[in-house]
Amino acid sequence: MAVKVLDESLGKVVLIKLKGGKVIRGVLQGFDQHMNLSLERAEEVNEDGKSNSLGTLIVRGDNIIMISPPPS
Amino acid sequence: MAVKVLDESLGKVVLIKLKGGKVIRGVLQGFDQHMNLSLERAEEVNEDGKSNSLGTLIVRGDNIIMISPPPS
Amino acid sequence: MAVKVLDESLGKVVLIKLKGGKVIRGVLQGFDQHMNLSLERAEEVNEDGKSNSLGTLIVRGDNIIMISPPPS
Amino acid sequence: MAVKVLDESLGKVVLIKLKGGKVIRGVLQGFDQHMNLSLERAEEVNEDGKSNSLGTLIVRGDNIIMISPPPS
Amino acid sequence: MAVKVLDESLGKVVLIKLKGGKVIRGVLQGFDQHMNLSLERAEEVNEDGKSNSLGTLIVRGDNIIMISPPPS
Amino acid sequence: MAVKVLDESLGKVVLIKLKGGKVIRGVLQGFDQHMNLSLERAEEVNEDGKSNSLGTLIVRGDNIIMISPPPS
Amino acid sequence: MAVKVLDESLGKVVLIKLKGGKVIRGVLQGFDQHMNLSLERAEEVNEDGKSNSLGTLIVRGDNIIMISPPPS
Repeated sequence: MAVKVLDESLGKVVLIKLKGGKVIRGVLQGFDQHMNLSLERAEEVNEDGKSNSLGTLIVRGDNIIMISPPPS
Repeated sequence: MAVKVLDESLGKVVLIKLKGGKVIRGVLQGFDQHMNLSLERAEEVNEDGKSNSLGTLIVRGDNIIMISPPPS
Repeated sequence: MAVKVLDESLGKVVLIKLKGGKVIRGVLQGFDQHMNLSLERAEEVNEDGKSNSLGTLIVRGDNIIMISPPPS
Repeated sequence: MAVKVLDESLGKVVLIKLKGGKVIRGVLQGFDQHMNLSLERAEEVNEDGKSNSLGTLIVRGDNIIMISPPPS
Repeated sequence: MAVKVLDESLGKVVLIKLKGGKVIRGVLQGFDQHMNLSLERAEEVNEDGKSNSLGTLIVRGDNIIMISPPPS
Repeated sequence: MAVKVLDESLGKVVLIKLKGGKVIRGVLQGFDQHMNLSLERAEEVNEDGKSNSLGTLIVRGDNIIMISPPPS
Repeated sequence: MAVKVLDESLGKVVLIKLKGGKVIRGVLQGFDQHMNLSLERAEEVNEDGKSNSLGTLIVRGDNIIMISPPPS
């Protein structure tokens, strides 16, 4: 299920909301069955809409609340 | 059990309450055994009743408190 | 164990206390080994004794503190 | 281990301390390997020593800090 | 590992620190692979050094931070 | 997935954000399937940009929010 | 991975940071796959740099954030 949506999002920009309020945006490079994600050109999106660059990133799945694939 | 109710809700609007208080509404597109959900035309419902659009969405099951299928 | 009590409660009203303080009441329609519950005619019982209707509901087992079956 | 102590407590009054501070007392009717308990004539024991009746009760094991079997 | 230390502590007084700050002391009667413990003549040790008796006790392992076996 | 990125980062400096806000930087020496990491020449990076040395370090995977491999 | 570093630290002093802020120092006597540790001559290191002796100690792995082996 999630696999299908994540699969279709490979190479595209996804938006990720983490527990604790952090929001990350980046190009999805890979994922596994724990919903661990690897992103490229990732950035943290702050509440004021600005973002700071994080580069390549591994996000542990258990911190994730939700993932928005790009609009199709 | 949950499978049956979720199965009958496929393609319909469900309301999801998350830990931490967020409420999400969207058309259920899929789910798995962890209760990970994929939604379309999802929106976050704020306390004042307004909502902001989230588009397609994967919600990790472990953040979910409860799911309301549409009234039958 | 829990299975027996839950089994005997099928089709009857149960009271559910959730982590965080929410109290839910509803007719038990089903359950699984994670104590995920499906309820019908569910309602959230507020501290002042009033309740607001939630309709059909799936409650994820890991949010549950305790379940009171109906008095026999 | 726990099985032996719980086994010897079947049909007797046990005292249960839950995460978050709740204290429950009731007649132990059953338990499983997750330490889920089923109690009869359960009551919540308040800090002032008073108690309010809960009747039959399933307590999810993952909320339990400790269980006191009856004095032998 | 833990098994060896706990094994050598059977029948002896152990001190247990729990998540949330509670400290329990009691004679170790048994343990299992989840580090669930059964204690006899257990008592809760308060911050002022006083203690109140808890009798026989099952402590769920997932609440435990550390266990001090008796000095050898 | 994560394995590939971590594999390519062996022997290089990674930046690790932990639950609770700690930030750790160090040379990645190894990792396992739980995302437990072993680091050398690790240091804790404080909010003011200063860092204090921690030397060799094992970080338990379940504390990790995200890992930034070095820019390629 | 962690096994190798922990293996090399057997019989040596390690520093352990726990969730919630506690810092423990002691001679590593053993460990298992859950990162449960057994320590000898353990002591809790307070923020003011002083320490109070804890003797022999079992630390449950799931409370551990990180472990510093001795400088080699």
